[in-house]
Amino acid sequence: MAVLFKKPQQEQLASFFNKDILNAAQFRLEDIETIMNTAGHYEQLLIDKKVIKDMEGKVMAALFFEPSTRTRLSFETAMLRLGGAVITVAESETNQISSTAKGETIQDAISVIDGYADVIVIRNPVTGTADRAAQAALHPVINGGDGSGQHPTQGLLDIYTIMKAKGRVEGLTIALVGDLKYGRTVHSLVDFFALYGCDLILASPEALKMPPEIVRNLRAGGINVKEIDSLKEAVADADVLYVTRVQKERFPIVAEYDQVKDLFIVDQDLLREAKEGMIILHPLPRVNEIALEVDSYPGALYFQQAHNGLFVRMAILALVTGSVL
Amino acid sequence: MAVLFKKPQQEQLASFFNKDILNAAQFRLEDIETIMNTAGHYEQLLIDKKVIKDMEGKVMAALFFEPSTRTRLSFETAMLRLGGAVITVAESETNQISSTAKGETIQDAISVIDGYADVIVIRNPVTGTADRAAQAALHPVINGGDGSGQHPTQGLLDIYTIMKAKGRVEGLTIALVGDLKYGRTVHSLVDFFALYGCDLILASPEALKMPPEIVRNLRAGGINVKEIDSLKEAVADADVLYVTRVQKERFPIVAEYDQVKDLFIVDQDLLREAKEGMIILHPLPRVNEIALEVDSYPGALYFQQAHNGLFVRMAILALVTGSVL
Amino acid sequence: MAVLFKKPQQEQLASFFNKDILNAAQFRLEDIETIMNTAGHYEQLLIDKKVIKDMEGKVMAALFFEPSTRTRLSFETAMLRLGGAVITVAESETNQISSTAKGETIQDAISVIDGYADVIVIRNPVTGTADRAAQAALHPVINGGDGSGQHPTQGLLDIYTIMKAKGRVEGLTIALVGDLKYGRTVHSLVDFFALYGCDLILASPEALKMPPEIVRNLRAGGINVKEIDSLKEAVADADVLYVTRVQKERFPIVAEYDQVKDLFIVDQDLLREAKEGMIILHPLPRVNEIALEVDSYPGALYFQQAHNGLFVRMAILALVTGSVL
Repeated sequence: MAVLFKKPQQEQLASFFNKDILNAAQFRLEDIETIMNTAGHYEQLLIDKKVIKDMEGKVMAALFFEPSTRTRLSFETAMLRLGGAVITVAESETNQISSTAKGETIQDAISVIDGYADVIVIRNPVTGTADRAAQAALHPVINGGDGSGQHPTQGLLDIYTIMKAKGRVEGLTIALVGDLKYGRTVHSLVDFFALYGCDLILASPEALKMPPEIVRNLRAGGINVKEIDSLKEAVADADVLYVTRVQKERFPIVAEYDQVKDLFIVDQDLLREAKEGMIILHPLPRVNEIALEVDSYPGALYFQQAHNGLFVRMAILALVTGSVL
Repeated sequence: MAVLFKKPQQEQLASFFNKDILNAAQFRLEDIETIMNTAGHYEQLLIDKKVIKDMEGKVMAALFFEPSTRTRLSFETAMLRLGGAVITVAESETNQISSTAKGETIQDAISVIDGYADVIVIRNPVTGTADRAAQAALHPVINGGDGSGQHPTQGLLDIYTIMKAKGRVEGLTIALVGDLKYGRTVHSLVDFFALYGCDLILASPEALKMPPEIVRNLRAGGINVKEIDSLKEAVADADVLYVTRVQKERFPIVAEYDQVKDLFIVDQDLLREAKEGMIILHPLPRVNEIALEVDSYPGALYFQQAHNGLFVRMAILALVTGSVL
Repeated sequence: MAVLFKKPQQEQLASFFNKDILNAAQFRLEDIETIMNTAGHYEQLLIDKKVIKDMEGKVMAALFFEPSTRTRLSFETAMLRLGGAVITVAESETNQISSTAKGETIQDAISVIDGYADVIVIRNPVTGTADRAAQAALHPVINGGDGSGQHPTQGLLDIYTIMKAKGRVEGLTIALVGDLKYGRTVHSLVDFFALYGCDLILASPEALKMPPEIVRNLRAGGINVKEIDSLKEAVADADVLYVTRVQKERFPIVAEYDQVKDLFIVDQDLLREAKEGMIILHPLPRVNEIALEVDSYPGALYFQQAHNGLFVRMAILALVTGSVL
């Protein structure tokens, strides 16, 4: 850790103060470096069993208007590990915040919560909600996932995991496999990989291909993109195998889902073809797209990846509130 | 702030120790002064970025048996900003606390929670629940709103907002407009204004007039009350325009709601008639009874008013638990 | 307190480090003694109004996949009173954790949460879930009740309450009355009483008798067990009257419930027959099996018993995480 990540400089830290974290496209390479270094700094403090008080006396509002237990708990833990406190709204899609159910706009609701909290994390099924919240709030707003749109902290924790495992991101070959059409994670993630000039392999069944405009944009930016429909071929060349879940709820027709769900399963057999040192990532939850037997594979880092979300979210919370000591 | 609010004296603080906060009628003017001064003290500490530990090691139970995200988050934030901790029950009306669903009385449930917490905040759709809870608990109970009954901390934050904006409450002309029949806020609020001897203008459609017994009581107490059905006339004379939402859910017949909901809308046109320095308050959430264009009006203080709830609730929590340092 | 409980020795404390708390059968007498002494230590610190920081910087995950407000709040308060922080999932049986609703295994969900928290408390309607969680987690797991299975912290707080009231558990006559067939509490509890060699009176209506294999096991272990169907006879001989609720939801047929629910009611009349110093316990919530008039009986300790759960859970949380200072 100590070698890989350096404590960020004061001016880098200052550039984040009071910034909203809304989408992957907002980051330059040096911004990501600052987040990675800050995350590494906090991971080291936790490894050293330090009690951190960087955010003592501060309050984070976790507004989850769509069930996402994992992301909510990750952000809450991050804030608590920084010595801060948390207020939470965890409603189902139909229930909403009680005041907006009464006809209030999201802007009004945010203006009120902005008076309570120092930083707001919002997740909402409606694309663009985080942007509207950021316009209403004086305090920084972090997008915890909105609709089929952006989920920037997921991409950042993926980058952090790759850096820790491979020592770098530049020059790696990244294979994204599974549902590349409906999975929001990968749409946001390719922006990060493009920034690092990675070679991309996009492996999916025909029905679940990456949207063509995203592929066009990547190629226009000089990224080497290979589109294939074979999982085996992806494994042979990849440094990073990024597996995504075929999400039943994204399919308009159930039969279409049943047709493709078993085509892209990672098991030990498949891994015999893998390059030395290949790592396997997955945003979780997984259903059956990675066999349980793979969990003991040395490069199976998906649980560590989820754990890394904690350090990255600590970094982001502390950075945007100017709390890194 | 320093000029307006003085740090309260020890004996005033002591008079609150272990008191329940159940209704507006329980307060004398000097009690309100103590709460206002304590709220001002905490607001100043937060402005000065102090980390407050007055309630370190103490626990507040937030029992919200009716959805009210805003009030719940306000109380929770207040406790957390005081350095205390929070346990929360936020159930829907139909779900209730799991044990009372099994047939337990509210008194038994409170007796158990009283063993965990140092102070209990309760919101319940059934009028009188806070009183019953207060009888069962050894620790102080704060009414966070019950049925069509009382919501005393709302009234106190309204007073605090007026004091901060106008420097005083005595002698002001207060116009209460909108739904004065079903809105619980205003029934509780007039008790506070009566205590200060304010002149009251009650402006509402005929179907939503203030209950006659309340008006009779006010007049019997020597309060000057004018009942009108014109929003324009209210604005011409008021120092404080207190707008309330026409709450759809309070109407037995939807058609009745549709008939009146647009009659009392505050917009820029109307504000041309306003007295210099008039302030606009609203307990929020608003739907369309205040036009968005009004948000930039200098006297539009409704979001600041919600924010003030934090300082007032900090004051109340610290006072009843004897925690003001 | 000081006389009854001594501060536990370092080697006793060490024996608990990183242990899961899954069932009553796992404890030897000296383990229980360590928990009791640690609970007594924390109760004394709270009586002395100490701010405890033994778990500062640590995080507890409360995973309640079945509504149990009381147990959840007790664990949460315990962690907060130790200076620790809490993340919570409180879902209804049908809602579940959002990720398992998408098809994720409980093991995967626990592996992720294990990366956030230092200790996991789990309650789940499915018997054996706590064991599966313990296998998946590197951090200690505490069973907060699973199905018709185990609820070990309930039994431990019962023992603590008896020790405080009677000075000892050995040699006492314990009457367990009410629903001994469906009530999970008593099945777990008899293991503790057997360890202390107590005499047991099992008083229930015929339809709600203790399962015969449990009675056989107790007798095989040398425990004196008397099975009766009269509440009056139980009261005459008991040092501890442990009343359980006839839980409607455990009966397949409602008529069967209606037939027996009023047969075993403890009231003042009945208590005239009681031995001097008899104490009455109840795991709560009660419905009508103990008359309200009994609440003022000197031996009516059921609310104190619930309160004691706080100290026992503080002890367990601090012990398994190696946090007792």
